[in-house]
Amino acid sequence: MTTATAQAHPNIALVKYWGKRDEDLVLPLAGSLSMTLDALPTTTSVTLDPSAREDAFELNGEPASGERLRRVARFLDLARERAGGEPPRAIVRSRNEAPTGAGLASSASGFAALALAASAAYGLPRDARSLSRLARRGSGSAARSVVGGFAVWHAGDDETSYAEAIDGPDLRMVIVTVDGSGKAVSSREAMRRTALTSPFHDAWALSAAQSLDAMIAAFRDADVTRIGRIAESNALRMHAVIQSADPPIRYLGPASVAVFDAVRRLRGEGLDAYATADAGPNVVAICRPEDAADLARALAPLGGVRVAAPGPGATLTAGAAA
Amino acid sequence: MTTATAQAHPNIALVKYWGKRDEDLVLPLAGSLSMTLDALPTTTSVTLDPSAREDAFELNGEPASGERLRRVARFLDLARERAGGEPPRAIVRSRNEAPTGAGLASSASGFAALALAASAAYGLPRDARSLSRLARRGSGSAARSVVGGFAVWHAGDDETSYAEAIDGPDLRMVIVTVDGSGKAVSSREAMRRTALTSPFHDAWALSAAQSLDAMIAAFRDADVTRIGRIAESNALRMHAVIQSADPPIRYLGPASVAVFDAVRRLRGEGLDAYATADAGPNVVAICRPEDAADLARALAPLGGVRVAAPGPGATLTAGAAA
Repeated sequence: MTTATAQAHPNIALVKYWGKRDEDLVLPLAGSLSMTLDALPTTTSVTLDPSAREDAFELNGEPASGERLRRVARFLDLARERAGGEPPRAIVRSRNEAPTGAGLASSASGFAALALAASAAYGLPRDARSLSRLARRGSGSAARSVVGGFAVWHAGDDETSYAEAIDGPDLRMVIVTVDGSGKAVSSREAMRRTALTSPFHDAWALSAAQSLDAMIAAFRDADVTRIGRIAESNALRMHAVIQSADPPIRYLGPASVAVFDAVRRLRGEGLDAYATADAGPNVVAICRPEDAADLARALAPLGGVRVAAPGPGATLTAGAAA
Repeated sequence: MTTATAQAHPNIALVKYWGKRDEDLVLPLAGSLSMTLDALPTTTSVTLDPSAREDAFELNGEPASGERLRRVARFLDLARERAGGEPPRAIVRSRNEAPTGAGLASSASGFAALALAASAAYGLPRDARSLSRLARRGSGSAARSVVGGFAVWHAGDDETSYAEAIDGPDLRMVIVTVDGSGKAVSSREAMRRTALTSPFHDAWALSAAQSLDAMIAAFRDADVTRIGRIAESNALRMHAVIQSADPPIRYLGPASVAVFDAVRRLRGEGLDAYATADAGPNVVAICRPEDAADLARALAPLGGVRVAAPGPGATLTAGAAA
């Protein structure tokens, strides 16, 4: 049987993706920008099984069922549709190093790895743009994990909404894990509720697009302070728009706010650091490489800390014409 | 020498005032609704002193100077302007039971008491509308503390922007004081920064006006659950718009978020309670009178708790034709 195995890493957005203009095609309201990490990879293999009548999915060694399995199967359908003919069903085996569903974007690394492994197994194009467009359909932010280092994911239509690399200054991220449990409200559901009920939703979309323009300029100037400021402001605006949904959704708990407070305090003491958080309780502090050890030490009392550098894009580790 | 003494209480808004359409006249962007508390009063006396060349202000027994004194003197100028002629300067003595500047609206009780004491001392009209209009000029939310029980402060122009009583169901507020220190950014400065830099500012103003309409309807129906839901959503939206300013302003610290979390958890356990917070770290939980003791007990581990019921409007306690 044909097997292809790929690895991809989570990414942390410096300008967040929050809100879709097309739910089926996973087209974002605005572009976003992220750093792909060198930590917490997902490794996924796709084994074509001509005898199978259904796809199978095993996550961290456990067979998955229900919506989790259906999401993978729908994604494989997209790959098979692109392949044409009547390609076989597959067995997908995936292993995450990051805790699932706690805001560390395991769905990003997961669908980026799956996009590459499935593309290899089914003989689809494996250029970055094709992979990013395909990964996007599994989970929006997966479009960015296809790309190594820093990635800009363009808004646009089905053809033009993909991520590509952007040069930037070397950065470190100190990931502070304050809560390993799953989210009360999934990002998908929260995006939907935000779009339907937040009075700030339209203004958020425009603000995110403007933040992206400002961030791209800050990247061009390799200006870490501006990058950090824009990232923290953009993250707090995303959490603001989420919190303004009805009923409200709050992802930042007391421990998360304590990290934001600590980063602000450290900044006051001269350490040029900034905080961001995806749709979950964990907080990520951004700094220059030379400040990472000090920052990690200062934040260690507040949660589990891990320093991440810019990491590689999705890579094929084994199988089909690797 | 003529002395008049008045007492007024803080109020906690169920639909918040955040943002001015006229800074000099203190006209709000949208109307608001509050409960005047039966706790933490400010008592203020105004003594006319024909021999003085400047106003004097004593707060909690300490002579005030700088911006604090100027703000009181400017307010007395408004009262003297309404009185006509050349009325004398005054000595203002004020005593707060609430901690100053920590989000418990001591400026509301302060300027409501001062409006009444100054009106009595200078022989101005003392009907609720005149007092509320005058108090508004000292501090917007003071317009509401003139009124006892529940008050709606109308947006409008200088003539029509005042608070008046609205009937409602009996409620209790459990005030959880998590931090007695002053604010890093004053409400006045934060409102300005929000107006200038938040992308959500216009949408917030419209949302607040809509929340007020919904809240007035919930009051008409004496529907505590709806009142609570609207209040919590409106408060989180206010903190969202504040947090979206650039640079961001965050009034809710880890301990504040812990109270919001606890109220949500208690609600899940069947206690019909909701949380709100003014521009500061303290949180106020809203409930029916019969639930107040349980709620206060449950929240006591998170801060200093105090149960407040609807309290009286500003009252003259001594002096000039009381």
